[in-house]
Amino acid sequence: MSLFRPEIDRIAGYTPGEQPQDSGWTKLNTNENPYPPSPRVVEALTAAAQGKLNLYPDPLGTKFRKAAANATGFDPDWILPGNGSDEILTILTRSFAGPTDQIAYPYPSYILYETLADLQGARHERLLLEPDWSFDFDKVGPQIERSKLVFVPNPNSPSGNRWTWDDLIALTPPKGMLVLDEAYGDFCDAPHRGELLNSTVGKQVVITRTFSKSYSLAGIRFGFAIAHPDIIAGLRKMKDSYNCDSLALAAATAAIEDQEWMRQNTDRIRATRTRLTAALTELGYHVVPSQTNFVWATHPGKAHKAQYEALKSRKILVRYMSFPDVDWATDRRLDGLRITIGTDAEIDTFLSALREIV
Amino acid sequence: MSLFRPEIDRIAGYTPGEQPQDSGWTKLNTNENPYPPSPRVVEALTAAAQGKLNLYPDPLGTKFRKAAANATGFDPDWILPGNGSDEILTILTRSFAGPTDQIAYPYPSYILYETLADLQGARHERLLLEPDWSFDFDKVGPQIERSKLVFVPNPNSPSGNRWTWDDLIALTPPKGMLVLDEAYGDFCDAPHRGELLNSTVGKQVVITRTFSKSYSLAGIRFGFAIAHPDIIAGLRKMKDSYNCDSLALAAATAAIEDQEWMRQNTDRIRATRTRLTAALTELGYHVVPSQTNFVWATHPGKAHKAQYEALKSRKILVRYMSFPDVDWATDRRLDGLRITIGTDAEIDTFLSALREIV
Repeated sequence: MSLFRPEIDRIAGYTPGEQPQDSGWTKLNTNENPYPPSPRVVEALTAAAQGKLNLYPDPLGTKFRKAAANATGFDPDWILPGNGSDEILTILTRSFAGPTDQIAYPYPSYILYETLADLQGARHERLLLEPDWSFDFDKVGPQIERSKLVFVPNPNSPSGNRWTWDDLIALTPPKGMLVLDEAYGDFCDAPHRGELLNSTVGKQVVITRTFSKSYSLAGIRFGFAIAHPDIIAGLRKMKDSYNCDSLALAAATAAIEDQEWMRQNTDRIRATRTRLTAALTELGYHVVPSQTNFVWATHPGKAHKAQYEALKSRKILVRYMSFPDVDWATDRRLDGLRITIGTDAEIDTFLSALREIV
Repeated sequence: MSLFRPEIDRIAGYTPGEQPQDSGWTKLNTNENPYPPSPRVVEALTAAAQGKLNLYPDPLGTKFRKAAANATGFDPDWILPGNGSDEILTILTRSFAGPTDQIAYPYPSYILYETLADLQGARHERLLLEPDWSFDFDKVGPQIERSKLVFVPNPNSPSGNRWTWDDLIALTPPKGMLVLDEAYGDFCDAPHRGELLNSTVGKQVVITRTFSKSYSLAGIRFGFAIAHPDIIAGLRKMKDSYNCDSLALAAATAAIEDQEWMRQNTDRIRATRTRLTAALTELGYHVVPSQTNFVWATHPGKAHKAQYEALKSRKILVRYMSFPDVDWATDRRLDGLRITIGTDAEIDTFLSALREIV
């Protein structure tokens, strides 16, 4: 007899993308940045490794919050550091959604939101996107209205598209919170600046950011939330006292202080994205114009899974994704390949292999 | 109008011990280890800082689990790594206690268990300890019987005492889980070896361990759970995919491989503990015989708060603790000083100051 909560027994749990521990892979499956982090990060970590690791870290991450304030233009009391933006999303779920509350999120989108709702034992609904990845607000409006918490990744995954200001206002539940997951925000042609926090719905908005993508620091697990200080103060109650370790705090502080390094890498990735999009289009793929560090590619032949496997047998990993219950897709199932923008050399390796396969 | 869950608005949140960010303090308030971590940890971190931080860490912490298996004698599939044992305690709370389930824990004890129950919106009860820090099982038996989850720190904080095997069996709820928080287990004269996991109640037991105390690594946030593989598999669904970062994993692996370094430091701390206990007793304090890296000291004069403040004005921090609703204490309030075992020099500084104060 299991003693777990029945909600937990019922679900399979979230499966992250494959992380092979051996070498030799061209890894284009989990949207990591192919470029290394700022040299200042390595310096900061090397110094921190010599520091007083026997002492607890600053529970409030004061130095990081000051650096983040400089970078974002929001005061330090608008900033909550977390052990990856995944932890921030968990804290938000637990803070706002009790068992009778509803959580909503676009679909197809980041599957973790549904897992978080399941783990919390909260009710949840998918906001079904249209074939062009837009919202039909006549359809989703009533769903948003009855939600306590709406998660929206902007830009979206796997599609890579970005919704407009008006969309985001309409996605804010009248009696709830909008979480704007900007994991990929730095890859937009015109990056966000948190403007929604100063809008009429500002006190109902939390923006989340991560260091895993644009700052090339998936290995250190660091993200943060930006929101009105009243919201941040409430979220602090939910977090573990020392949720961020000394090393991650030192690395993230150094990284956010080196905006130029980050911009240089996101610029390179955007250039490669343009090239990859053109090459895939030439090979007969439909590619959604991407504002992220990946592209969503579908082929009319629909042999996506076989393509994924043929690539894998060549030690090239992309993400095969399959979304059931999509009304407008053939057999009600949308599938395709989500391909991370690697270095130019990695993308060449991928394209050569793909040309043999398709 | 707040949009937080009412449970969250109602509570104040957990307040960790003071962590002054300036220098010059004799810090005996949060049970940190005064000695540095193994030099192998610094080496491992320096190497990891040069590694591929742009990639996600191993979500399963495979290398660490193998090292922990060597150190504990339990197979790797009995081990769940976490971002501090605080995160493990959160995962356990969420996995086993729904809103109608009850959580119980000794009192006076580690206050975090109550905070975790509040944050989860679960019911909770205190198991009131006797003046000698024992359980009266006639009293607490029915409370344990109706609990889904019982947290027991062994040894206990703030008292530093350790309960027996028979106590632990009796504390296991017949239809629930016992979480044995062994944060201070390495400081016992005869450290635990996880024997309870092989007992008749083994599948209802989860043991938690931390690197913050005996391994001198409060700064890296690392802990782990030991439990039957069926339990570990369920808990894995609840954790964030990448809950432990590359650097913390590298540091914890190096630390647990250097058992000799850890033992050498815990031996020194135990020797200082004997000396501190004798000195406090001589100054008129009652000191509970401690199996941890701190002592709980109470003075018949009961001017504990004034003593804490006089020490603080000399830049010496100890933990003043005050527990209301303790039937057997004067004015139903138990208070006292919890003093971390520092280096011999730190303890001398503390004792000199205390002699001026008392």
